[in-house]
Amino acid sequence: MVKRKAVEGCTFVEGGVCAAKGFLANGVHCGLAHKALTAETPKEDHPVGTPGKNDLAMIFSKTPCAAAAMYTTNKVQAAPIQVTKRHLRNGRAQAVIVNSVNANACNADGITKAEKMCELAADALQLEPEDIIVASTGVIGQTLPLEPIAAAVPGLAEGLNEKGNTEAVKAIMTTDTQPKEIAVQFTAGGKVCTLGGMLKGSGMIHPNMATTLTFVTTDCAIEAALIQQALREVVALTLNHVSVDGDTSTNDMVCVLANGAAGNPLITKETADYEMFRDALYAVLMNLARRMARDGEGATKLIECFCEGADTDETAVIVAKSVITSSLFKAAVFGEDANCGRILCAIGYAPADLDVSQVDVSLGSEKGTIPVCRKGLVLDFSEEKAKEILGEEEILVHISLGNGGGNAVVWGCDLTYDYVRINGDYRS
Amino acid sequence: MVKRKAVEGCTFVEGGVCAAKGFLANGVHCGLAHKALTAETPKEDHPVGTPGKNDLAMIFSKTPCAAAAMYTTNKVQAAPIQVTKRHLRNGRAQAVIVNSVNANACNADGITKAEKMCELAADALQLEPEDIIVASTGVIGQTLPLEPIAAAVPGLAEGLNEKGNTEAVKAIMTTDTQPKEIAVQFTAGGKVCTLGGMLKGSGMIHPNMATTLTFVTTDCAIEAALIQQALREVVALTLNHVSVDGDTSTNDMVCVLANGAAGNPLITKETADYEMFRDALYAVLMNLARRMARDGEGATKLIECFCEGADTDETAVIVAKSVITSSLFKAAVFGEDANCGRILCAIGYAPADLDVSQVDVSLGSEKGTIPVCRKGLVLDFSEEKAKEILGEEEILVHISLGNGGGNAVVWGCDLTYDYVRINGDYRS
Repeated sequence: MVKRKAVEGCTFVEGGVCAAKGFLANGVHCGLAHKALTAETPKEDHPVGTPGKNDLAMIFSKTPCAAAAMYTTNKVQAAPIQVTKRHLRNGRAQAVIVNSVNANACNADGITKAEKMCELAADALQLEPEDIIVASTGVIGQTLPLEPIAAAVPGLAEGLNEKGNTEAVKAIMTTDTQPKEIAVQFTAGGKVCTLGGMLKGSGMIHPNMATTLTFVTTDCAIEAALIQQALREVVALTLNHVSVDGDTSTNDMVCVLANGAAGNPLITKETADYEMFRDALYAVLMNLARRMARDGEGATKLIECFCEGADTDETAVIVAKSVITSSLFKAAVFGEDANCGRILCAIGYAPADLDVSQVDVSLGSEKGTIPVCRKGLVLDFSEEKAKEILGEEEILVHISLGNGGGNAVVWGCDLTYDYVRINGDYRS
Repeated sequence: MVKRKAVEGCTFVEGGVCAAKGFLANGVHCGLAHKALTAETPKEDHPVGTPGKNDLAMIFSKTPCAAAAMYTTNKVQAAPIQVTKRHLRNGRAQAVIVNSVNANACNADGITKAEKMCELAADALQLEPEDIIVASTGVIGQTLPLEPIAAAVPGLAEGLNEKGNTEAVKAIMTTDTQPKEIAVQFTAGGKVCTLGGMLKGSGMIHPNMATTLTFVTTDCAIEAALIQQALREVVALTLNHVSVDGDTSTNDMVCVLANGAAGNPLITKETADYEMFRDALYAVLMNLARRMARDGEGATKLIECFCEGADTDETAVIVAKSVITSSLFKAAVFGEDANCGRILCAIGYAPADLDVSQVDVSLGSEKGTIPVCRKGLVLDFSEEKAKEILGEEEILVHISLGNGGGNAVVWGCDLTYDYVRINGDYRS
């Protein structure tokens, strides 16, 4: 497990999406297991739809919430994405229903099914369907069976509780090897506010789980428009700075529900309270992003790439992403090979304006830091020391472009045999 | 070995870069083996620098040639690229010297060494250094030892012969599992002309062999400016339509030498003869491109993706490349899994203007063709038939965007355990 990174003004607390006041959650196994799975299927071969694994979750706020969301930019948009977009037009929601195993994407009857999921949840919770956020993750292009969901929803709602985050987070996992949840407390308007989130990562297995779903709850009182603004700012620096394999899914969604139960004065402008809220959102999404990268399919290491000295922040992002998405470099990190030529190569083909003769690169981890390139030339460094550094779980690539004040940090992971194994599996 | 694809007006012949009249070649082992290799190193672990493997090649034309080249777009440019660019400014060359194992890139003394290689070749061949094209492929950022090259060049030149293409093509191989050479004959100005080429592929191992080098020779009489024009047109449709792992190297080069020995009237304009020359160049580079893709690191299959119905050819290229560079899709092809959801997903995130509700996709091979998506929705196809189709070595993905007359064909390969093994190896 990678370490949590602190953010000023935020204190880590337990509880994930149930950490904030007034939020309940639950997760159950409703039986959406992949059609080809049986009780005999070895667990390690079929982490998705493992018999008995939770596959349906619900999050509920006791009172209506201001809500905002961001969605995949893929032109192929799964049915739940289309339905949720419609439901959030009024900036209001009170519950989430989400399933794993089946993405409900590229199906002729997908919209109807996603709407039906909202109706089922609304009936059980005595809400309007328009107050429900719906999400799915799983195989693209397979008809979603509604029966198991319909049968499970009443019990799922009945069982909502203040520690239900642990069952809910399991229900959204696909190839994730670890549940991912983070919560923090901060102060706004003199009141202690809590903000927590859960995320399913870039597990994209069996065969199409190309989905990142993130759910954030908070008791901070804040207007929907400002949640949207903070989300846009923070996602740009966190979830959008992760790359596991460069594929953008049809189902990606991140949503925030704010019920105001903390009792702080409603945040309606870009005040210091707004900035604190945004920092808390950053603390949660940044740490979830790091965990997602570390838990990328088949990954054994988190790669954090910090690029500075760029003419603009945008250039720094482009260069850092070019490095962490290079298959050659990712495979070298897996092999714990301080392959700085591949880093220079990836910097060189990044579509950005830079002077390679000014580029410095160093590699670091808890074992120390070693410069490997200076002024665009490979240094004669100690392979032994480099190997020791790369033996750690968290690897830092530090790039200096020597060309200005722009900088960025992005996260990725190594490329391993297991990535190929997981994604080369047959569906049957 | 993938099949050769015919082009109208061109007849395949043997001989690679020695097929055209007046060209000689040779390849030897000069001893550039990687510093850490010994006679005890298992061959399969160290295909580069295997003791005794050819690592130095020469191509020579008995008479001066019109010449043109294209180079990597990476901002990090290896020393031989910089030297060759200078030498080809006058559109004239008569010989090529090329080594494998060491890329001579990102080294402080790289330019001096690349110039020295030209001087050594010029001395042995009684030419001017400016008439020499120099190229290197291998590890980035390691000092190139000149001594083995200096010692070998006289014998290399002495041994130049009309069947030397077979030794030369071995010398440029790195992780290539097969030598790649193609030659064709065509008629221009009533004379039979010959055009042949050799290529080293996207083998990028141990650890930085991210280099595609291509050398083409022809006895067709044609001006350098027109060679350059044809090269630009043809490379755009062939070498630039291949992706093995998305990394663009520091050393890529393709060059053409034309000595006019066929006796055809000099081609100086865009006549029918020019078009025939361009078609022959296309036949050679397209077939080499296919072989390169099939022989991508660790690959077991060639994926040919044909996209039609795009608003422009450019859109078709963008969409087809998005599909063949998707790690998820590439891994699925390795697993022979007809994972059409991943194809739709990759089409959806391609940065191009298209309507996903109009997209049809089919998969094909020598075993037949099967539609898998229609109007953006996944079809209920026979998994058995799909698996049979994907069991072949050459897989065709046919995408129709239903939006116009633009089309393109691009080539890639599957993503396999061996790709990770090869690129995760330590350098020591």
